[in-house]
Amino acid sequence: MDSAPDTPRLDAQMAFLGEADRLKAVIRATRVTGNRFENSAEHSWHVALYALTLAEHAPEGCDTTRVIQMLLLHDLVEIDAGDNPIFGDHDAAAMEAAEAAAADRLFGLLPADQAASFRAIWDEFEANETPEARFAKSLDRFAPPVLNMAAGGGSWSDYSVEWDTFETRVAPKIASGAPGLWQWLRPRARAVFDRLAGRA
Amino acid sequence: MDSAPDTPRLDAQMAFLGEADRLKAVIRATRVTGNRFENSAEHSWHVALYALTLAEHAPEGCDTTRVIQMLLLHDLVEIDAGDNPIFGDHDAAAMEAAEAAAADRLFGLLPADQAASFRAIWDEFEANETPEARFAKSLDRFAPPVLNMAAGGGSWSDYSVEWDTFETRVAPKIASGAPGLWQWLRPRARAVFDRLAGRA
Repeated sequence: MDSAPDTPRLDAQMAFLGEADRLKAVIRATRVTGNRFENSAEHSWHVALYALTLAEHAPEGCDTTRVIQMLLLHDLVEIDAGDNPIFGDHDAAAMEAAEAAAADRLFGLLPADQAASFRAIWDEFEANETPEARFAKSLDRFAPPVLNMAAGGGSWSDYSVEWDTFETRVAPKIASGAPGLWQWLRPRARAVFDRLAGRA
Repeated sequence: MDSAPDTPRLDAQMAFLGEADRLKAVIRATRVTGNRFENSAEHSWHVALYALTLAEHAPEGCDTTRVIQMLLLHDLVEIDAGDNPIFGDHDAAAMEAAEAAAADRLFGLLPADQAASFRAIWDEFEANETPEARFAKSLDRFAPPVLNMAAGGGSWSDYSVEWDTFETRVAPKIASGAPGLWQWLRPRARAVFDRLAGRA
C-alpha cells in the first residue's frame, strides 16, 4: 500500500471539511418542500443561492462574493451551539458565548492563516455593520418567511406567531440590508397571516 | 391589506428560488454523518465550502468566485432529471438530454438576462474545459470519496465497487482539475478498499 504524502496543511483543511459535514444534522424550525424540517447545511446553500440571484437588491457597492462566503460559513457554529429559532426563547449572552467558543474550535481546525481569515468573515457577518454583512443577514432572515409562505404557515403556525411579533422581530432585520425584499415580502406574508388567523 | 408592488423581475427571481428548494428532496448515493443519505442541496453547500477552503489547490489563475457560483448551480438540473450515481448504470445521452431540458425549464424561470448568465455558468461547468470548470468538477468528484471514507465504505459498499473501478472511473475526474487532492486521497481511499476486501 502507498504511504500518505506528508501534507499537514491539507490534512488540517480536510479535518475542517469533515467536521463541517455535521452541519447537515443541525435541524432548523423551518420546513422545506415535502414538509420535513430543514437542516442548516441545505439552508446555507439556499441563502447563498439567494445572494447570487438577488445581488441586484443589495446595497450600493456590496461585494456579492464576500456575501456568499459569509453565507457559506455563517451557520457552522451551530454544529456545537445548535440552532436558535428566531421565535424561540433563549439567553442571548449565553448563545453568543457558545457560538464564539464554537467558532474558536471549528475555524481552529484550519491552518492558522485560513483560520484567521474565515473567522474574520464570520465575525464581520455577526457584527452586521458592513454592507456585505447587512445584506447577508437580511437574506438569512428573508429566506425562512419565504419557506413559511410556501408551507402555508410553517414555523409561524408551529410557534403561534402573530403578525405584530413578525413585523417587530423579523421585518427590521430584513429591511435593514434589503428594503426592496421586505417591500416584496410584506403584503405576501400578511396575506398568509390573515389566512391563518381566519381573517381572509 | 396592502397590495403587492408590481415587481415582475423580483417575482421571477423568487419563482426560481422557490423551485430551487426542491433540490433538498433529491437524494444521492452518498451518506452523511449519522449514515442517512445525502441530498443534493446540502452536497452543493459542502462542495462550495470545499472550493472556498481548498482554493489554493486549484489550477493556476483559477477564479474561485466563479468556481463557487458553478457549484451552487451545478446540481439544480437534478430537480427534473434526478441524480445519477457514478457507479450506477445509465444512458449517458438520455441523461444529457434530460439535464439540458431541466436547465431550460429551471433557468428559464429567471429574468432573461439572468437566465442566460446562469445557464452560461452551468454550460461552462458541464463542458469541463476552463480551469474553473475543471476544478469545480474535480471537487464534485472528490467530496463523495471523502464521505465514503468517513462512513467506512458508504456507496463503495452499497454498489460493491472494486478498487480498479474506482481508480479507472473516479480518479481521472479528480486528478484532472486537482492532482494534489487525488494524491492526498489515493492512499487513504486505498486503505479503506483494502479493509473492505479483507486485505488489511
